[in-house]
Amino acid sequence: MRKIETCLSPELIHLYEIKGKNVVIVDIFRATSTMISALANGVFSITPFYSLEECMGMQGKGYIIAGERDGKTAEGFELGNSPIEFLNGQYKGKKIAMTTTNGTHAIEKSKLNASSIIIGSFLNLNATAKYLSSKGENILILCAGWKGKFNLEDSLYAGALATVLKSNFQTECDTTIALESLYECHQNNLKKLLSRASHTKRLQNENIEADIDFCLTFNKYNTIGVFNGEVIISEKQ
Amino acid sequence: MRKIETCLSPELIHLYEIKGKNVVIVDIFRATSTMISALANGVFSITPFYSLEECMGMQGKGYIIAGERDGKTAEGFELGNSPIEFLNGQYKGKKIAMTTTNGTHAIEKSKLNASSIIIGSFLNLNATAKYLSSKGENILILCAGWKGKFNLEDSLYAGALATVLKSNFQTECDTTIALESLYECHQNNLKKLLSRASHTKRLQNENIEADIDFCLTFNKYNTIGVFNGEVIISEKQ
Repeated sequence: MRKIETCLSPELIHLYEIKGKNVVIVDIFRATSTMISALANGVFSITPFYSLEECMGMQGKGYIIAGERDGKTAEGFELGNSPIEFLNGQYKGKKIAMTTTNGTHAIEKSKLNASSIIIGSFLNLNATAKYLSSKGENILILCAGWKGKFNLEDSLYAGALATVLKSNFQTECDTTIALESLYECHQNNLKKLLSRASHTKRLQNENIEADIDFCLTFNKYNTIGVFNGEVIISEKQ
Repeated sequence: MRKIETCLSPELIHLYEIKGKNVVIVDIFRATSTMISALANGVFSITPFYSLEECMGMQGKGYIIAGERDGKTAEGFELGNSPIEFLNGQYKGKKIAMTTTNGTHAIEKSKLNASSIIIGSFLNLNATAKYLSSKGENILILCAGWKGKFNLEDSLYAGALATVLKSNFQTECDTTIALESLYECHQNNLKKLLSRASHTKRLQNENIEADIDFCLTFNKYNTIGVFNGEVIISEKQ
């Protein structure tokens, strides 16, 4: 049976074999949720950048630039990191250059050796699970975390994905066993547990409760987000 | 109110402030459980060593040497890493030099800056919680993990300690929130969840089920294990 593992932080990725695996990158608040929202709302592609400077350099070259650091829109950037900004179809057909505190860093850390890189979010949980089940590879879920540390929302997504995939994948990974169990204990009220989370509090301070609610919406889209080595594009189921 | 945080692996310790904190080192299977069993059964002191060679060098200098790598007694060492070896009082009054795969490494990583280093185990959970409550410092629980990765048994102990300390300490740490909740979901049947854990399976392959049961015994001892910068000694409540 195929296997599923979870890495809690890009700081631990050197401990995992990436080669030949489908790596699911998770940054629920908000990078990967925003990517899926963008693609589902017609954005043509998203190019992830590690640094603000490189990303900013794409302005005027046919790209809309989106930059976030510490939860805020970076100075001089057109877009920040809100999944809601894409809902009115304003960016349909556009190419986005994006850099975020944690999410794009996680992609950078895994892009060399993975069989494929998939963008994870609650917004397309079931569609992503179906897509991963249709493939032959083992799975590594890579939580972006917060500045290298474990975070609750990415971990709950990892637990949710492992739960949905249970019939097709087994796990011998303690992290996955723990998160699957944590998710199952709280699946009927994720928001209650998440209201205690450090990142939720940080985002609430920025008055973006609407973003939080949006990022915690299950299965709104069927779009799959795939990083092809250069850009993230959508692949419909 | 004082605060409690959890670091899931020595590989993430650079992300945490250690200075001025009481650091609780946890390696349930089996280093820290063995240390508490040894001290509770009259061992005078335990000197932790990072390397097998250094530890072996203490032989013939008044020390009993205990060495473990990958769950097995290291070649040439008198003792391995079993808490049961100390139960017959054979090592009463002795000084032990000890090196283990994960536990002694965790001590090494935190020994420079901590206010104090406490040895954590289920065997003395409540006594340790009482001791920590009597101190003024914030707490950092450092899980030894398995070769840098998260492990289930150390994490469940962190959750248990955080649960017992809830009335005196608050947490804004996502790791602690998650583990406290995981522990609370499974506290009536920890062994069931742990039977799925990678490390339990590894130990079962070594036929040391008796060690596993012993390490999961709650509150057998009132002994507190404190690392004073050089050796681990017992401090009675």
